[in-house]
Amino acid sequence: MTFDPQAWIDAMRAGDRATLGRAVSLVESARADDRPKAAALLSALGPARVDVHRVGVTGPPGVGKSTLIDRLGVRTLEAGHRVAVLAVDPSSERSGGSILGDKTRMTRLVADPRAFVRPSPSRGALGGVARRTREVMRLLEGVGYDRVFVETVGVGQSEALVAQLTDTVVGLLSPGIGDGLQGVKRGLLEWVDVAAVTHADGPQAEAAERTRRQFEAALSLFEGRDDGWRVTVLAVSSTEGTGIDALFEAVEAHHRHLCAGGRLPARRAAQRVRWMWHLVETGLVERLRSSSAAAAWEAAVAGGEVAPETVADRIVRQCAETLAGAVEHGA
Amino acid sequence: MTFDPQAWIDAMRAGDRATLGRAVSLVESARADDRPKAAALLSALGPARVDVHRVGVTGPPGVGKSTLIDRLGVRTLEAGHRVAVLAVDPSSERSGGSILGDKTRMTRLVADPRAFVRPSPSRGALGGVARRTREVMRLLEGVGYDRVFVETVGVGQSEALVAQLTDTVVGLLSPGIGDGLQGVKRGLLEWVDVAAVTHADGPQAEAAERTRRQFEAALSLFEGRDDGWRVTVLAVSSTEGTGIDALFEAVEAHHRHLCAGGRLPARRAAQRVRWMWHLVETGLVERLRSSSAAAAWEAAVAGGEVAPETVADRIVRQCAETLAGAVEHGA
Repeated sequence: MTFDPQAWIDAMRAGDRATLGRAVSLVESARADDRPKAAALLSALGPARVDVHRVGVTGPPGVGKSTLIDRLGVRTLEAGHRVAVLAVDPSSERSGGSILGDKTRMTRLVADPRAFVRPSPSRGALGGVARRTREVMRLLEGVGYDRVFVETVGVGQSEALVAQLTDTVVGLLSPGIGDGLQGVKRGLLEWVDVAAVTHADGPQAEAAERTRRQFEAALSLFEGRDDGWRVTVLAVSSTEGTGIDALFEAVEAHHRHLCAGGRLPARRAAQRVRWMWHLVETGLVERLRSSSAAAAWEAAVAGGEVAPETVADRIVRQCAETLAGAVEHGA
Repeated sequence: MTFDPQAWIDAMRAGDRATLGRAVSLVESARADDRPKAAALLSALGPARVDVHRVGVTGPPGVGKSTLIDRLGVRTLEAGHRVAVLAVDPSSERSGGSILGDKTRMTRLVADPRAFVRPSPSRGALGGVARRTREVMRLLEGVGYDRVFVETVGVGQSEALVAQLTDTVVGLLSPGIGDGLQGVKRGLLEWVDVAAVTHADGPQAEAAERTRRQFEAALSLFEGRDDGWRVTVLAVSSTEGTGIDALFEAVEAHHRHLCAGGRLPARRAAQRVRWMWHLVETGLVERLRSSSAAAAWEAAVAGGEVAPETVADRIVRQCAETLAGAVEHGA
């Protein structure tokens, strides 16, 4: 049976979520023989929509990302949008892995036919997930989802990664961090567009408001952004639903801010070019790292027997010579 | 005349600063025929010293980096160390460039025979400066300087870069940033080991102390570090010399912290391996970017005609095929 991309797309646009699940798996697949099918599917989607908003949600484990996305997603559906949720785990190389996009914590969204929730990707696909996330977003957008949430665990370089993939980064904080109970990653501050303190209910309501004020004061120490956007800091409760309207409004306001003056298309174009070079860099280094010589290079450099510059110069020179002819044509 | 590395090294160890200046230029040089000489010189230095401390100093333009390094450098000389100062400008690709390591603002250090100040590198060498900074540090350390300060302008990815090259990062802040007068880069927070508010004198003394407290409070929102180090926030005056002793002590305390339990050698070894891959990544992408096809790839990706993943996949696959044989031997 031949693969018919248009039939798949028609089914997905008609609301067939089983096909959508299969299509996401196809795009995420690391198998070489799946790539041509995935490429055919993606190119059959036609031009990218410009009215789509990509929202990254990040924060430390336990802050309540999944339950918040459930609430915010439902609020977004109520505003007439179609919502998709994806998970990305940049720490996937490590053995442990994290449970992301937990379906059991997104009960409202999972039950709604206007939403699509992609749970934690299967173990085997993990290595390629971040690499393919942008393509999965393209797929979801191409079949009708105009609000795509990307849940990420706030470890490693995840904020930097999600900021490169999405239009708006929502950073979540736990109440009481200023009281020494729990901290947030320092890197968060650099990437966040909208911030929210979670669990602002019951006995923690006061601590949440205190943390909100502290974080707002901390932000005032840092310079304004080139684009004139001012970060909002909110307190929200996924249990009681308080602050969810304000969060929805802040996220939409950032989208409008990006759309004004044509900022969004320019930003996306720059993101695509950076993403291409990012993939080339990581792809080439991955190949070199897995070469039989790599362990010996690393050991020699770590042991101080040879300078990193010396090894790097040799690798780059040697590669450049072999590449000189190859890169001019083909891509 | 043949190049005699040992004669150069003997001269530099005897305090010949003209030869040292020439040697630094040689190591920084981007000329292909200078590389073998630079490599010979560096390898003749013998094993790296472990009692050397590398200190990065970063902060926004106008915060007073050069005058502070002058004060801190003199204090470090008084403690019996030999001091070298380097400048690194990661924004050097951009046309403007910045004046770094300004000799006219380091009058005390420049006049002291126990110190070596390398001013802003010449325009032609800029591209290679960050790439060669680690080697220049090795040279300075190898001829007797045991405290090396690296001044960097706080723009772009400079904090991340300087954190990869040095043992301790000192982040400088201006007074009054919390009052909306001036901001610091958000990225600073992620990398700083010791923080100091400058200009804590005369009419600005009060604002400096207020900023110090605000920054200390802001830091308490963020999680502790894996290594158990606690960031100190000081107020200093380069004019009056207040706070300089405390700053010197904080910097030395961080050095002792790193040395305890063998953390420093392990950290340096990991830095060297990361630095090697960083140079390979940037080197290869630089070659690819300057290939005749690169502009066409970028335009097609920016315009949305082709997906970044598609172009990246093709480049990586093609390179990997040509590289497969080449990387196994030689380096």
